[in-house]
Amino acid sequence: MRALWSAEIIAVGSELLTPTRIDTNSLAITDTLNRLGIDVRAKAIVGDRRGDLAAVFRGALARADLVVLCGGLGPTDDDLTRDVVADVLERPLHEDAAITETIRARFARRNLTMPDLNRRQAMVPDGGSVLANVNGTAPGLWIEHADQVVMLLPGPPRELGPMLEGDVRQRLLTRVSGEGLFTRVVRIFGRSESHTEEAVRPFYAPWAAGSPAIEVTILAARGAIDLHLTVRARDQAFASAVLDPAVRQAAAALGDDVYSDTGRAIEQVTGDLLRERGWHLAAAESCTGGLLLSRLTDVPGSSDYVACGIVSYSNQSKVELLGVDPALIDAHGAVSEPVAQAMAAGIRARGGADVGIAITGIAGPGGGTETKPVGTVAIALDTPAGALVRTRRMPGGRDLIREMAVHAALDTLRRLLTGRQVP
Amino acid sequence: MRALWSAEIIAVGSELLTPTRIDTNSLAITDTLNRLGIDVRAKAIVGDRRGDLAAVFRGALARADLVVLCGGLGPTDDDLTRDVVADVLERPLHEDAAITETIRARFARRNLTMPDLNRRQAMVPDGGSVLANVNGTAPGLWIEHADQVVMLLPGPPRELGPMLEGDVRQRLLTRVSGEGLFTRVVRIFGRSESHTEEAVRPFYAPWAAGSPAIEVTILAARGAIDLHLTVRARDQAFASAVLDPAVRQAAAALGDDVYSDTGRAIEQVTGDLLRERGWHLAAAESCTGGLLLSRLTDVPGSSDYVACGIVSYSNQSKVELLGVDPALIDAHGAVSEPVAQAMAAGIRARGGADVGIAITGIAGPGGGTETKPVGTVAIALDTPAGALVRTRRMPGGRDLIREMAVHAALDTLRRLLTGRQVP
Repeated sequence: MRALWSAEIIAVGSELLTPTRIDTNSLAITDTLNRLGIDVRAKAIVGDRRGDLAAVFRGALARADLVVLCGGLGPTDDDLTRDVVADVLERPLHEDAAITETIRARFARRNLTMPDLNRRQAMVPDGGSVLANVNGTAPGLWIEHADQVVMLLPGPPRELGPMLEGDVRQRLLTRVSGEGLFTRVVRIFGRSESHTEEAVRPFYAPWAAGSPAIEVTILAARGAIDLHLTVRARDQAFASAVLDPAVRQAAAALGDDVYSDTGRAIEQVTGDLLRERGWHLAAAESCTGGLLLSRLTDVPGSSDYVACGIVSYSNQSKVELLGVDPALIDAHGAVSEPVAQAMAAGIRARGGADVGIAITGIAGPGGGTETKPVGTVAIALDTPAGALVRTRRMPGGRDLIREMAVHAALDTLRRLLTGRQVP
Repeated sequence: MRALWSAEIIAVGSELLTPTRIDTNSLAITDTLNRLGIDVRAKAIVGDRRGDLAAVFRGALARADLVVLCGGLGPTDDDLTRDVVADVLERPLHEDAAITETIRARFARRNLTMPDLNRRQAMVPDGGSVLANVNGTAPGLWIEHADQVVMLLPGPPRELGPMLEGDVRQRLLTRVSGEGLFTRVVRIFGRSESHTEEAVRPFYAPWAAGSPAIEVTILAARGAIDLHLTVRARDQAFASAVLDPAVRQAAAALGDDVYSDTGRAIEQVTGDLLRERGWHLAAAESCTGGLLLSRLTDVPGSSDYVACGIVSYSNQSKVELLGVDPALIDAHGAVSEPVAQAMAAGIRARGGADVGIAITGIAGPGGGTETKPVGTVAIALDTPAGALVRTRRMPGGRDLIREMAVHAALDTLRRLLTGRQVP
């Protein structure tokens, strides 16, 4: 028997094709497979239609070592997975009396009689064997088909989870190479996707030629860039021996723009820097309306370094709660560097904090002017290590402007605390 | 030209095959297609591999009237969608000089020189035409292929969204049957999914028997329940004639727990109630760390009714910034009804607002006790229409507890402002 290297996952259910529902089961399945070194090459979502499911299943079977189908194992008429798989593999279904008894007993424990419908869940394609379901009636199925494996798993997450970590993992362990996939994520703020690629591209050839080869992916999301380096290796130590030098090369090429080389969020990175110094932070937010504080306090244990915050949405509250001189607002406008500086100094003093951080800007859609268009954001810091203020122009709509402003503010604090250049 | 009835969506990007990332673009695409009466029959997710993408695209092309590919239009080497589609359709690529100029101008506006890499984004398959991208460099592409249509759309949601509502919709309008899918969403807070189903189930049979038939879906997400009622109809007026009475039936059965019968978010609903009264709100947040204010100020125009907020994460800041009597904290603990009430009164007075709202709780993972376990949250309101305080136990982990606390606080305010019962 050859080892299983590649997999495709098919989620079955018409509800997963509506505008509001999404297949999340494949994430848990992918995690289990990746840890065993099996690469997920494609995923599909099909509704409860016999023809569509058969066609998509045939396609996956033509490409992957392992095909995992998830959902459609229930007792009702629109649960087709078992039937379609049996058809395509040309393996007739037969009732497995042991499964029927297990289902019957499950109903009996709740003082119920098993509806006859549920006998469908005891049907097994010839040559198939059962994956135990501790939390539901439908067992999973494992079918060896020549060199390939086809698995049928239940859709409800509380049934799927234990099955993955139980029988599925045990069965797969006997069929894999013994190598897993290991990834390191380098996180970057302050340069574009294409400028990131320009900086790391010289390493692509040597990385790809190494043994094991390093695969590179660059992801851009909400203004931040993630560089993923992945290897296939026997264990973490072996993976690290290859990944660590590559991560150092990438980090050196990307310089001050790297905020984490271990995939950490900016709020965790800055939080740790504050904790190391024993400093407490207070924030004054205008256009971001509490988003900075809410991101920082998303992190468990953030009360170690977050003192408090004031959301001064109105000019009046900037004056009354932060002590900003109203003449400053009149002279420069609420979105200006002098006002941002006064807000940072004000929150630092009134919040009894070591670090004051302030954001004031125009998130839109209204409120922009020719000299201060929507997206203009002033960010100020007031800290024992010095004060600074910057005005930036954020792209996008209201949501992205707010998110980028928060990311930029935290990244500016990170640069100040680590002595990096602040552009 | 025949009408487009069925579609398949292919999301492209290796990052979408990892255990942590998910394709959400297909939801927005499905929404646009469904409203035009186009049924999404299957979705696929493939990585940045030429062979896999070609095979999956060929499969979709064999089944659907319309194939939508999303992502992989970037400027880098692993952006393959354009190339693979051109290959499979046997339509050579040529550079469109007008697109190159648009991209160059986009860079120039930010005082940047266009990297040569970006010229890849100006490549168009023969016979393809451009879908305008107002928020990014890569245009979308529309290709008529015999009776079928193939669309290539950008992956970043802020580029995809405007394109869907702009050129994509306009183009599709000329190619559909004239019947769309229309949905009304009734939003519910304060009862479970099964209690919602119990209340509306008596209507299922009459709704299904109507003409057009109403399809019902109940979705539970993050503590709130959405009831979707959908019909296929020629226009909005015809759909409304069927949906309006059904929505009224559902709303009557669900009573005070309905916070919107038009799919609006709780922060929009409460925002409008405040605006109607001309009242300003100020918020004092502890465990939610700014999340309530940030949700409220997500709404454009929220400065009409949001005055300010204080995130009093530490006891000291509750005393100093909100004027909470330290004896109250000593006697009852920071997470208690008396402290929540004092916070609400404090922020109302100090924030110069009409309405004070306060949240104090234990979001975990640490900090729980036997009498106040993780998830305990006290919510207080102080308004001209009266004051109230409630203690609730939220389920789930830190994130869900914080989200549920914010939702519960806003829903409590909604009930107070509309004279509904507050459980």
